[in-house]
Amino acid sequence: MTTPSLLILPGDGIGPEVMAEVRKIIDWFGAKRDLPFDVSEDLVGGAAYDKHGTPLHDDTMAHAQEVDAVLLGAVGGPKYDDLDFSVKPERGLLRLRKEMDLFANLRPAQCFDALADFSSLKKDIVAGLDIMIVRELTSGVYFGEPRGIFNEGNERVGINTQRYTESEIERAARAAFELAMRRGKKVCSMEKANVMESGILWREVATRVGQDYPEVELSHMYADNGAMQLVRAPKQFDVILTDNLFGDILSDCAAMLTGSLGMLPSASLGAPMANGRPKALYEPVHGSAPDIAGQGKANPIACILSFAMALRYSFDQGDEAARLERAIEAVLASGARTGDLMGPEGGTPLSTTEMGDAVLAAL
Amino acid sequence: MTTPSLLILPGDGIGPEVMAEVRKIIDWFGAKRDLPFDVSEDLVGGAAYDKHGTPLHDDTMAHAQEVDAVLLGAVGGPKYDDLDFSVKPERGLLRLRKEMDLFANLRPAQCFDALADFSSLKKDIVAGLDIMIVRELTSGVYFGEPRGIFNEGNERVGINTQRYTESEIERAARAAFELAMRRGKKVCSMEKANVMESGILWREVATRVGQDYPEVELSHMYADNGAMQLVRAPKQFDVILTDNLFGDILSDCAAMLTGSLGMLPSASLGAPMANGRPKALYEPVHGSAPDIAGQGKANPIACILSFAMALRYSFDQGDEAARLERAIEAVLASGARTGDLMGPEGGTPLSTTEMGDAVLAAL
Ligand SMILES: CC(C)[C@H](C(=O)O)[C@@H](O)C(=O)O
Ligand SMILES: CC(C)[C@H](C(=O)O)[C@@H](O)C(=O)O
Repeated sequence: MTTPSLLILPGDGIGPEVMAEVRKIIDWFGAKRDLPFDVSEDLVGGAAYDKHGTPLHDDTMAHAQEVDAVLLGAVGGPKYDDLDFSVKPERGLLRLRKEMDLFANLRPAQCFDALADFSSLKKDIVAGLDIMIVRELTSGVYFGEPRGIFNEGNERVGINTQRYTESEIERAARAAFELAMRRGKKVCSMEKANVMESGILWREVATRVGQDYPEVELSHMYADNGAMQLVRAPKQFDVILTDNLFGDILSDCAAMLTGSLGMLPSASLGAPMANGRPKALYEPVHGSAPDIAGQGKANPIACILSFAMALRYSFDQGDEAARLERAIEAVLASGARTGDLMGPEGGTPLSTTEMGDAVLAAL
Repeated sequence: MTTPSLLILPGDGIGPEVMAEVRKIIDWFGAKRDLPFDVSEDLVGGAAYDKHGTPLHDDTMAHAQEVDAVLLGAVGGPKYDDLDFSVKPERGLLRLRKEMDLFANLRPAQCFDALADFSSLKKDIVAGLDIMIVRELTSGVYFGEPRGIFNEGNERVGINTQRYTESEIERAARAAFELAMRRGKKVCSMEKANVMESGILWREVATRVGQDYPEVELSHMYADNGAMQLVRAPKQFDVILTDNLFGDILSDCAAMLTGSLGMLPSASLGAPMANGRPKALYEPVHGSAPDIAGQGKANPIACILSFAMALRYSFDQGDEAARLERAIEAVLASGARTGDLMGPEGGTPLSTTEMGDAVLAAL
């Protein structure tokens, strides 16, 4: 078997800092678990713009298409706020998602026992929370045409188009049901079928796909009610299936419920490649956090857990993924905390590097 | 001065029950405060569909255009789930909003002191919370064309269009800044300018309008981060300005933070009429709650507070509105609770009628 290849795109802000810790973990798996990776590194987002004048160079795009998995840090920052839309850091990430056709974005919202107190929600509402959000990632209003700012009479009009074909909905729905089969066997599909025709089609297709999974209980909820229910009683959910834009908002809301934003990874998966592995990009849910970038304060765990997701979903190494997850739980249980996880009681926070080293030691 | 006119549209589910209590309050203001209203009543939503085959009869629409204010209960219910999109109960409400041109939807998210324990969030995060969300209500993806489900190749595609003109954004923004001037002098505008051109235009126009209000501090936030920040630290906000779809989701999220969904009113305001009053529709934030409809369990306070908003925004009776709000606070302080406000300690909940009577008594 050839050594699996990993493309690392640290990106902007705290991306490079947290990714440096992930590289140590990757090296550990190569040295100690006989799981070597062929790692390459490149630029994305503002970092790519600074060098190439584009947030994703064509060579990087081509390389991303060839590797077994991409691991991304974060993109964006105030420095790039005034850039033209077409070269904003985000466009680099969106191009990767679109051209790799990564239609299923898996965003676990999990509340870590050791951190339940850290949520803004009451402990009993979130302790033990374990939701998986499946967000459609390559279509909808993020990519629909027509789009742009146009002249109309004597003023301008901003236009974007929400657009979903049956097959786009179907493949995202199938990903959600497959996951539900390996979890709590419940899928809640969220849209606004009461006001949007695209939501009506979404509901219809989700229902049809559900018929192939008779063991899975399917429910439907309007997205506004979904946001309410996430705040009111999040543990009612197992897998949530939703579109690109609703998924963007609802998954961030769900992530914040856990109080552990610096802990949450994500996987974006596409169709299987020739070698049977899905096209895949892994990234933390948190952003580039420009306010703390370069200070060695960032929590590397979300990015490390993104690598754990890669072990599970790209490399069929569920046991090794679990090993890494257990190491992180042990580190947290020992009381080790980066600054973002410090409660009011205080204490001395670990630096990004110290947290990476603590995980290595626990491994 | 002629007696001001009020059109009451109780609608579906718990709508008629809670509206019956509001009518008692309206009568009280006529009898005791020399504030008589010329009240008429009509059908909307499923109730209108059952009688007329349409969720809003043309005569009702015409009448709504003539009155000084409309007071609506709630629309929708599972009975109507399989109706064609064009006659769903929601279309009645959406037609009112659109044809009355009610572009500014004011949704206060307030945490009532007596109910702070009832939130799923920690008390210190929500106690004293007082946010005003200004949601654009007559445009965006709710109304943009093209829309529908179309054939494309050998499958169907669901399409909706997000569409905002500069003037649509401007008038909603102006409403937000005007409110901020009478409140905490902060506006946070939320969109997805990082991925949607309509969001770029939104941000630009909000910034331009803000220049007319130098005293108001304007900030911008991506809507996904907005959902996070609402959960993390909602008290950072004063007025939130956002579009129709984001507003739908974010205002429901904010409402649920307070733990008092049965308490929250809303106002939908349009341009001034010939008599100087704005076109206006008032309704509770909660829905038709089919699960408890007809059982006398519903909390009428959100609907009563919607009438208080009418007193303030349509009839320039801020003092009388405050009188009504104080009466409700006194009722809550006395420990009176409908079923939705019962904590785990239990007790005997008041019925809808008993709660209405309690407010009357406090007045
Ligand atoms: C950075 C941005 C383009 C992105 C999105 O809107 O999808 C982010 O918010 C996310 O959720 O991954
Ligand atoms: C009932 C429905 C059409 C409506 C909306 O989506 O606007 C409701 O959710 C609201 O927020 O008033």
